[in-house]
Amino acid sequence: MTSRNRVMRILKYKNALKRMKAFGFIKVFSNNLGDSIGITSVQVRKDFSLFSITGNKKGGYVIDDLLVQINTILGKEEVQNIVVVGCGKLGRSLMNYKGFENESISIVAGFDVLENKIDRDSTIPILPISEISTFIREKNIEIAILSTPDSEAQKMLDIIIEAGIKGVLNFVPVRLNDNNLSVIHNVDLSAELEALLYFTRTMTK
Amino acid sequence: MTSRNRVMRILKYKNALKRMKAFGFIKVFSNNLGDSIGITSVQVRKDFSLFSITGNKKGGYVIDDLLVQINTILGKEEVQNIVVVGCGKLGRSLMNYKGFENESISIVAGFDVLENKIDRDSTIPILPISEISTFIREKNIEIAILSTPDSEAQKMLDIIIEAGIKGVLNFVPVRLNDNNLSVIHNVDLSAELEALLYFTRTMTK
Repeated sequence: MTSRNRVMRILKYKNALKRMKAFGFIKVFSNNLGDSIGITSVQVRKDFSLFSITGNKKGGYVIDDLLVQINTILGKEEVQNIVVVGCGKLGRSLMNYKGFENESISIVAGFDVLENKIDRDSTIPILPISEISTFIREKNIEIAILSTPDSEAQKMLDIIIEAGIKGVLNFVPVRLNDNNLSVIHNVDLSAELEALLYFTRTMTK
Repeated sequence: MTSRNRVMRILKYKNALKRMKAFGFIKVFSNNLGDSIGITSVQVRKDFSLFSITGNKKGGYVIDDLLVQINTILGKEEVQNIVVVGCGKLGRSLMNYKGFENESISIVAGFDVLENKIDRDSTIPILPISEISTFIREKNIEIAILSTPDSEAQKMLDIIIEAGIKGVLNFVPVRLNDNNLSVIHNVDLSAELEALLYFTRTMTK
């Protein structure tokens, strides 16, 4: 069983390795990599071992080799087409979020119930929600970002799962029920903020 | 040392307890609470013990008592005033994010460099960046949400830390340097999405 935390660490390794590569490094040791993301070298080696990432522990890992192995684990070879459901302020900002500008993630359309949001001519078109099921089926979309109003979220989730969506990044701060038919990751921004408040308050520096 | 994951779990306990309370429950056992957020009862009791949360393990914990203790840990008694730095699409959507509508978190102003973004009459005013240092000092603001363009992020971080900001929720997908003067939590939306892709791809159902 791969935990979410472990996968998030693998993503951090990848970003750290890309930075090191940009600095001109060729090789890295597990303790350097651990230091760069604030964990122990033991944890790095454990993660690598669990994902069957190989390398020469004594001489250091070759950064390019690590990146190839990590990309294989993450399945980066295919471009993932993604739709955004709910094109209010948050939805539209996610459609334009610079951090997604990644060769393997492409937001291909947004969907909304409101007539005045529809914009077929935009770089990333915003289409009426009535077209979403057909769109998902015809284009084999498997991932959706959910950013509807709270009251619409469950209904929309039911529709997109029925149409074939398998993974949902949910920004709606309500608990959704998918009958175990998909993978839902909740981005709970208020929990992030509360955790930040806690750590700021207890900061001893 | 309290880990971020432990604090995030405490926030999940709180939300689960609030739901249970809304359902009319009075008491809860650690295994019910663990089940509701997908962890073991051993982990629940370990977390409670580390935070000195007390209760009658055999007879179950009284939900109201747990909530009081958790709120004390999280320091919920004070309202935290927060500013948003960078009022593009993401910044403005965060200013209006429903999930923050919480008695202890209040976004009091946004700041932007662009003249045409300024709106002093809005419910949450958007003010010129030239006023941010004075605003932070006069109102004793300690927490900021950073949602500027990538190229502005480090400069803005330097300014707000100098003015007294101690905690930053950073949505800008670049690595920032705070010289250890603050607590920075990075919300890396593309890493969330990549993790979702991974789990969707490896889903075996």
